[in-house]
Amino acid sequence: MVVVVEQNGTHAAAITPKRLTLDGIGARRAKAGRLVASTASYSDSDMFKSPYAYGKPKAKRWEHLFSQESLARGPCVLKQAAKYLKQPGMISLGGGLPAPENFPIDSLSLRVPTPPYFTEAETHGPLGQDITIGKYDARNPDGESVFDLSIGMNYGQSVGAAPLVRWVTEHTELVNAPPYSDWRCALTVGSTGALEQALRIFCDRARGDSILTEEFSFSTALETALPLGIRVFGVGMDGEGLVPERLDEVLSNWDPAARGGARKPTVLYTVPSGQNPTGATQSLQRRREVYKVCQKHDVYIFEDEPYYYLQMPAYNSSNGHANGHTNGHTNGHANGAVALPAETIEEFLESLVPSLLSIDTDGRVLRMDSFSKVVVPGSRVGWITASEEVVDRFIRHAECCNQGPSGISQLVMHKLVDETWGHEGYLRWLMHLRREYTRRRDTILAACEKYLPRDLVSWVPPAAGMFLWLQIDPAQHPRAGAVSLLEIEEQLFFTCIAKGVLATRGSWFRAEPDRPLSGLFFRTTFAAASESNIAAAVERFGAAVREVFGRS
Amino acid sequence: MVVVVEQNGTHAAAITPKRLTLDGIGARRAKAGRLVASTASYSDSDMFKSPYAYGKPKAKRWEHLFSQESLARGPCVLKQAAKYLKQPGMISLGGGLPAPENFPIDSLSLRVPTPPYFTEAETHGPLGQDITIGKYDARNPDGESVFDLSIGMNYGQSVGAAPLVRWVTEHTELVNAPPYSDWRCALTVGSTGALEQALRIFCDRARGDSILTEEFSFSTALETALPLGIRVFGVGMDGEGLVPERLDEVLSNWDPAARGGARKPTVLYTVPSGQNPTGATQSLQRRREVYKVCQKHDVYIFEDEPYYYLQMPAYNSSNGHANGHTNGHTNGHANGAVALPAETIEEFLESLVPSLLSIDTDGRVLRMDSFSKVVVPGSRVGWITASEEVVDRFIRHAECCNQGPSGISQLVMHKLVDETWGHEGYLRWLMHLRREYTRRRDTILAACEKYLPRDLVSWVPPAAGMFLWLQIDPAQHPRAGAVSLLEIEEQLFFTCIAKGVLATRGSWFRAEPDRPLSGLFFRTTFAAASESNIAAAVERFGAAVREVFGRS
Repeated sequence: MVVVVEQNGTHAAAITPKRLTLDGIGARRAKAGRLVASTASYSDSDMFKSPYAYGKPKAKRWEHLFSQESLARGPCVLKQAAKYLKQPGMISLGGGLPAPENFPIDSLSLRVPTPPYFTEAETHGPLGQDITIGKYDARNPDGESVFDLSIGMNYGQSVGAAPLVRWVTEHTELVNAPPYSDWRCALTVGSTGALEQALRIFCDRARGDSILTEEFSFSTALETALPLGIRVFGVGMDGEGLVPERLDEVLSNWDPAARGGARKPTVLYTVPSGQNPTGATQSLQRRREVYKVCQKHDVYIFEDEPYYYLQMPAYNSSNGHANGHTNGHTNGHANGAVALPAETIEEFLESLVPSLLSIDTDGRVLRMDSFSKVVVPGSRVGWITASEEVVDRFIRHAECCNQGPSGISQLVMHKLVDETWGHEGYLRWLMHLRREYTRRRDTILAACEKYLPRDLVSWVPPAAGMFLWLQIDPAQHPRAGAVSLLEIEEQLFFTCIAKGVLATRGSWFRAEPDRPLSGLFFRTTFAAASESNIAAAVERFGAAVREVFGRS
Repeated sequence: MVVVVEQNGTHAAAITPKRLTLDGIGARRAKAGRLVASTASYSDSDMFKSPYAYGKPKAKRWEHLFSQESLARGPCVLKQAAKYLKQPGMISLGGGLPAPENFPIDSLSLRVPTPPYFTEAETHGPLGQDITIGKYDARNPDGESVFDLSIGMNYGQSVGAAPLVRWVTEHTELVNAPPYSDWRCALTVGSTGALEQALRIFCDRARGDSILTEEFSFSTALETALPLGIRVFGVGMDGEGLVPERLDEVLSNWDPAARGGARKPTVLYTVPSGQNPTGATQSLQRRREVYKVCQKHDVYIFEDEPYYYLQMPAYNSSNGHANGHTNGHTNGHANGAVALPAETIEEFLESLVPSLLSIDTDGRVLRMDSFSKVVVPGSRVGWITASEEVVDRFIRHAECCNQGPSGISQLVMHKLVDETWGHEGYLRWLMHLRREYTRRRDTILAACEKYLPRDLVSWVPPAAGMFLWLQIDPAQHPRAGAVSLLEIEEQLFFTCIAKGVLATRGSWFRAEPDRPLSGLFFRTTFAAASESNIAAAVERFGAAVREVFGRS
């Protein structure tokens, strides 16, 4: 059972009395011996979980939610046949896997940071390190490498290559320690693709299925659901994101007739940390309440967490810098912000608001993790964690669509985060990265304080992620009442363009575009532009607001 | 219009009087100037086609075939907003693209062959070359590179990165010169994923849609269609694959009632070269006839061509080696086999049986190309070519599922096939590769002649691809009549396993598994095992056949 320890204002929560540690991963690997995983060999998380992962209740079953499409999927017959290859001496005339002698790449090298010297300049200079993946590294029994070009550049299993499945399993257990026994991980081609697969598994057009999400939600997620015939409905938000009471109300009072015939939603799609587009972060208490409402209505949860590790200390507006120890405890806790700039890995892990997965006693959460925001988006590698039953559906689907992520990407990611950095180095990288994002966030917030008319524009300092959500008061528009919110939004958008700043219109994120816009919002990001450009861009945005609102 | 030139028994066919050449690509690039394509910038094939590609009729329209799902897809709103970034001086607070300063990879290097020294040993030794992709190469206006880590490791457009879209467009025009004007290419995550997207675009469960394919077809393709509720029906084959007369019969006599309510098929899925599993290759005449039948019944064509460049000279059983000039002309031509071992690039290109795309005056072909069989499967990069209308549907779909292939894979492929090898070096690589596969094919055929009982087992020497399809005479089984074909197949499969050889059961490839099996077949591949193991494996297969048929 889950034991919650709230100490020193940090989120050392949802921690089982005994759980996997960094040392524990090392010990488990030493005991298991060298990982032997040849071309296209099958693996699953059960091969890599710690003893602590067992002895818990099993996940609930979800077959009653699965779509006609998903239920019709059998395992891939050719990938099944690969099991016979384990027999000693077997020669395969079976699968059409090209011989690696015909792969025209002899080695692949990367120059990467040596922890803790993570900056671009340090990596480019003498502190960087060159690492190389050879074609047949894994055949060397004395070598470090268990994954090489001959394996990674060939066909693989859709679940992912065993060495990377091992790493994501260990990382997931270290951070989330799911409180049920039969959880598993599978690699994805990124969370956009993972969401599409999940929607096709859990929702069925012919059944009139619908899902819930935040009132303002990630536009690509909405665009993914709609062509599948899945209706999306929004749930009210506050500064901490999704409001559990609103969620309960929507579900308790569901009337298909009033909802265009849509069935009562069976799935919630949520981004709990640094939500896109609002930047809101759910506190632990909020997450518990959301989970409870989902239990009450038997709603399955898609937890999309690309920004999870970009949780930041609370912002102190008086100096434009992040809070230190002085007042971060209470301040940070209330709106889900991280209390302390972490100093040690343990402090870093404890400072993170626990995930929905970490409180998921039912196995009703499919968590999506991504390397896009914390390593590189171009890898198109992420992973999901869910119960074995769900992951099995997911893998069968992947076998007939993307076949799992690029093997080249898997090689690069594995070499970096496992063989070179290890779990500890990777966590140190994440600590570095959130310091970078904290500085960027502080830059945009300071610029907003300096350049935006505070009587017109308001915001909640984000506690995670990449986005700052600006609310503008439409009542002060010169033609308020005579023009619609959408018209003011459009006017402001194009005035911004004319002044040389691109900001994203709030209306593009409406979960229900056919309902009236509930306010005038713009999403800005502090991830992309250089820090000097961020200030210039906010100045332009402020000038645009003044012009549109007749203040210039 | 298409002018067909049949000369010297080669397939210099479907060639327009003037078409793009290797020199023409160089000239076009020189005239166009340096390609400038920053992070996530949009591109399409129209930017890269030669003047010869225009002045032809436009493709027919296919909206009447599109599914409810595909018709509901709008463009991705966030990717649309990127168009404003072209304005000089624009600062983006728009898309959540991470700043490349936070990408922990400073450079990526590869060791690759220097044409024409393509063997593994040559590449590993001093003849290999080391090539490097830096983080900001493309910012150097005097540099060669137009694609670097800062671009390729960030988010990109689903159509693919501009430099690789350029390369596949040029390559496709060089080889196929589609005979209509508004064709385009888009990158894919491989042909399995491309097929899934194409099926979801063209077929609709709710409409009772069905497709046709070869009587024995790629099992993963069948497994992709069935969960989508798309019925698949098989068309009779001979040594050249799909038989046009059978195709016409099936379509002309379609009776939904006799077909379980399935609508008359609107799509043909075919693998014209080195078909999986039978290894059959359609001759040019055969392709023309198939195309004509599809025109007659207004059937759209998915042309899946992973093995296209693995077309081989005809096999000469007398010496176990490929034919030379002496009798290859007529021999090779009849069954679609390549006539001559190509010596020059021009001869190589002319020796390839023209694709369906190259005779596609209507724009009714969606061709799928793949790097899996000719570079590495693990890149998970391929591309499609079709009319603009269809490619547009495809890209919109990709935006909401895989977001296009891995940027790391795109970087590696572009660096290799464009910047390092160029089109000429890549074609020389393909020429090398088909020599390798020819030798492997000759090895398995020689082993079959040596080890298989010819009165029990028969085969057609493949003219392309990776597969040899073995037919076994069930009438000679000791319990013929008392046991089913499937039982004999299973008995033989497990006898093979016991003897240490994995071959693939023919029944796994049936387009219609609920209809009686039309013969006893096994698919073998000569791609995977080492050449010495191929002979040993065939010997084991022969022993298994003898045992099952009471000859041992």
